[in-house]
Amino acid sequence: MKQFRKKLVSDKLKLTELVDKNLLKLKRKSHGGEIYKDEINKSGLLDFSTNINHLLELEPYMNSIMKSLTRISRYPDSDSMQLKKSLVEYFQNILTPNNLIIGGGSIDLINIFVSTFVQEKDKIVVCQPTFSEYEWAIKKRGGVVINEYRLPERNFQLNFQSLKKQLAKKPKCVFICNPNNPNGYLDNIEAMEDLICYAKERKIMVFLDEAFIEFAGEENSLITKVKQYENLFVIRSFTKFFGIPGLRIGFGGGNPKLINFLKKVQTLWPVNNVAQELAEELLNSKDFIKNSVRYFKEECKFVSEELAKIKGLKIYPTSTNYLLINTENTSLSSKYITNQMLKQNILVRDCSNYNGLDDYYIRVAIKSRDLNCKLIRTFNSVCN
Amino acid sequence: MKQFRKKLVSDKLKLTELVDKNLLKLKRKSHGGEIYKDEINKSGLLDFSTNINHLLELEPYMNSIMKSLTRISRYPDSDSMQLKKSLVEYFQNILTPNNLIIGGGSIDLINIFVSTFVQEKDKIVVCQPTFSEYEWAIKKRGGVVINEYRLPERNFQLNFQSLKKQLAKKPKCVFICNPNNPNGYLDNIEAMEDLICYAKERKIMVFLDEAFIEFAGEENSLITKVKQYENLFVIRSFTKFFGIPGLRIGFGGGNPKLINFLKKVQTLWPVNNVAQELAEELLNSKDFIKNSVRYFKEECKFVSEELAKIKGLKIYPTSTNYLLINTENTSLSSKYITNQMLKQNILVRDCSNYNGLDDYYIRVAIKSRDLNCKLIRTFNSVCN
Repeated sequence: MKQFRKKLVSDKLKLTELVDKNLLKLKRKSHGGEIYKDEINKSGLLDFSTNINHLLELEPYMNSIMKSLTRISRYPDSDSMQLKKSLVEYFQNILTPNNLIIGGGSIDLINIFVSTFVQEKDKIVVCQPTFSEYEWAIKKRGGVVINEYRLPERNFQLNFQSLKKQLAKKPKCVFICNPNNPNGYLDNIEAMEDLICYAKERKIMVFLDEAFIEFAGEENSLITKVKQYENLFVIRSFTKFFGIPGLRIGFGGGNPKLINFLKKVQTLWPVNNVAQELAEELLNSKDFIKNSVRYFKEECKFVSEELAKIKGLKIYPTSTNYLLINTENTSLSSKYITNQMLKQNILVRDCSNYNGLDDYYIRVAIKSRDLNCKLIRTFNSVCN
Repeated sequence: MKQFRKKLVSDKLKLTELVDKNLLKLKRKSHGGEIYKDEINKSGLLDFSTNINHLLELEPYMNSIMKSLTRISRYPDSDSMQLKKSLVEYFQNILTPNNLIIGGGSIDLINIFVSTFVQEKDKIVVCQPTFSEYEWAIKKRGGVVINEYRLPERNFQLNFQSLKKQLAKKPKCVFICNPNNPNGYLDNIEAMEDLICYAKERKIMVFLDEAFIEFAGEENSLITKVKQYENLFVIRSFTKFFGIPGLRIGFGGGNPKLINFLKKVQTLWPVNNVAQELAEELLNSKDFIKNSVRYFKEECKFVSEELAKIKGLKIYPTSTNYLLINTENTSLSSKYITNQMLKQNILVRDCSNYNGLDDYYIRVAIKSRDLNCKLIRTFNSVCN
C-alpha cells in the first residue's frame, strides 16, 4: 500500500523537474511605473517613479501614426530598414544599417545579447547599482554575476581602476549603464573608451546601456565607436528621452558580425509598425530634442537645489531627467517615505531593492515645474 | 617571426569563440509576407503569401486606438490584466487570468516556452511540415529535433499512432500545430486530447499552436483543457484571424504553475499598449468573428474547387483561410510558379523550404472574391 502511494506521487507531473534549473531560484525585481498594481492603481496618481520625458506631444505626429495604423494588417518589416536608414542619418552616416539592430524596447536587446554570449557558469561583471534586468537575464542563462560597485561617496561614478582589476580576471562580458540608472551620473567618456579598449585586448565583450544618453547630449554617446571596437555593443532606447514606453522600441549598435549574431537570436518581427513609424519621426524632431535637453538640464538643477534644502536629503549629481536621493539623515526609510507620499497621490521609486543601495534611497523623475513643486512640497511635508 | 605573427592573429577578437556554440550553425527560414525585401518590394503587389484575415476594418475601433495612443507615454501593463479579463470572459469563465499569458505575437510565446523547457541535448518531437520557428527556437537552445512527418497521401493529417510511438521514447516535449500551417487540416479533437493524456502519463510537455483555430471554430480549441492537463500549453494569436500582425500580440493558456514559470522567463513589457487595447475590443466583436468564420469557409471552398480545375494542381483540405497546393503534376516547380506569378504582381508562398515538403508546394491565402479570381486566373495562365 505504501509503495503504491509512492508510485502515485511520483507519477504526478512535476514542472520543477522539467524546467531549466536556472529558473528555479530566478526572481525579478520590481520597477518604476507599476501603476497597474492593485495597491497603486488609483486615479489622480502622479507618477514620478518612471523616468520618461513628459514633453512629447503626439499631435504633430498624428499623420504618421495614422499612416502606420492603416498598415497593422501587414507584418512589420522584421528588419526595420526604414528606421535604420533614419538612424544612419541621425548619426551623420558614421554608422551603416549593418551596424544597427532594432528591438522591442532595450530590454529585448539586453536579452538577445545575453542569449548570444552568456552560457552556463560564464562570469559576467555588472556595475551596480543598476537596471536589474541585466542580472535577471544573466541568471536566467546560468551566468555568474560578479558585482562591481559604484559607491555613494564617489557620487556613484565608475571606478575605472577597480573595474579594470575585475576585467583582468577575464570575465566574458561587462555590463555598464551610462548615465547610470538610478543615479544619473555621466561617466567620463575618455575613461570609458579606454576601458573598452582594455576589454578588447582581453577579448571581453562590453555591453554599454545608453538608455539616457540623449539627456546628457549626443556627444557623450559611444555608439559610433562600434566601428573601432568589435567587442562593444551599445543599446539605446526610444522609451526614455523620446517618451514612448507604451510602444516598446529601442535599438543597438555594434560591429556587423556582432549584429548578425544578435539577429540570429532575436525573435522575428520584434517591433510593431506603429513604433517603427513614430520612432523615425521622432529622430527628425530637432526642436523637441533641443528643447528637451535644455529643459531637463535646467529643471534638474532647480529640483536638486530645492530638494537639497530639505533637512537630511542628499541629492546625487545627474545628467539625466531623474534624481537619486539619499534619505538616511532624515532617519526615515525610503519605504516609509514612498508610502507616505503615495497617500498624497505621488508615486516615487523606492530604490531599496537595488543591489548596492540600502534602505534610504529614492529616485524621482523630473516633470513640469508645477508638478515638481508639488513633489518638493510633499517631500517637505513627509520629511519634516 | 612566425611565432609573433601567430600571436597577433590569436589576439584578434573572434566572436565565434565567444558566442553560444548553438548559434554557429543556426539558420532561419524565410516566411510569407516578406514584402519589404528589395526583390519583392514593389507597389501594387497582391500579397497572398501571408495568411491574415483581411476582413478587419479599423474604423469601428478608432476610439479605443486613439485612447491607447494617449497612453503611449506610459509603460504598458506588463501583465496585460485588462486583456486577460476579456479573455476570461471570451472563454466563458472556464479559464482564470492565472491560466493566461500575453506575448508579443505567438512567436514570443514559442520562445519563452522553449527557454523554459528545452535544454542542451533535450529531445523534442516536432510534427512536420510546420511553422519553422519551433525548430529554430529549439536549436537555438541546443535541443535535438525529432521529426514526425505528416504525409501528403494522408492530406497531412496527424498520424496519432505513429506520434505515440515517438512519445513512447520519452522526449521532453512535442510541438503540434492545429490546424497545421501550411496545409490547414484540422486534426481530430478527441484524438488530440487522448494524445495529450498519453503524453501527460509520460511527463511529456505538449506545445499546441492554435494560431488558426478561430477559422475552424472555437469549439475545436483545447485551450480550456489546460485545467485538466498540466503538461499542456496552448498558444493563440491575434495575428491571423483577428488580422493585426503589425501590432504583435498573441496569448497562451496553461496551468497556473506553468504560466508562472513562463512569466519568469518572458521579458518585461512584452506587449505594447495599442495592441493590448485593440485586442480587447476584437474579442468582443461578435459579428466580425461570425462573419469571418462563415466567409472563409465558403470562400475556401470556392477557391479550392476553382484551383482544382486547373490541370495538374492538387489542393489539400483546409479548415483555415489558406490552401496548400501541390504542383507536381504540372511538372512546374513551386519556385518557377512563384517567380512567374510575382512578375504578374502576385506574391504566393513557395513552400519548398518546409521540412517535409518538396519542390512542388505553394500556399495561398484567401482574400476577397475579386482578388481570389485574379489569383485563380494567374495560376491558370502560369500553369497552362
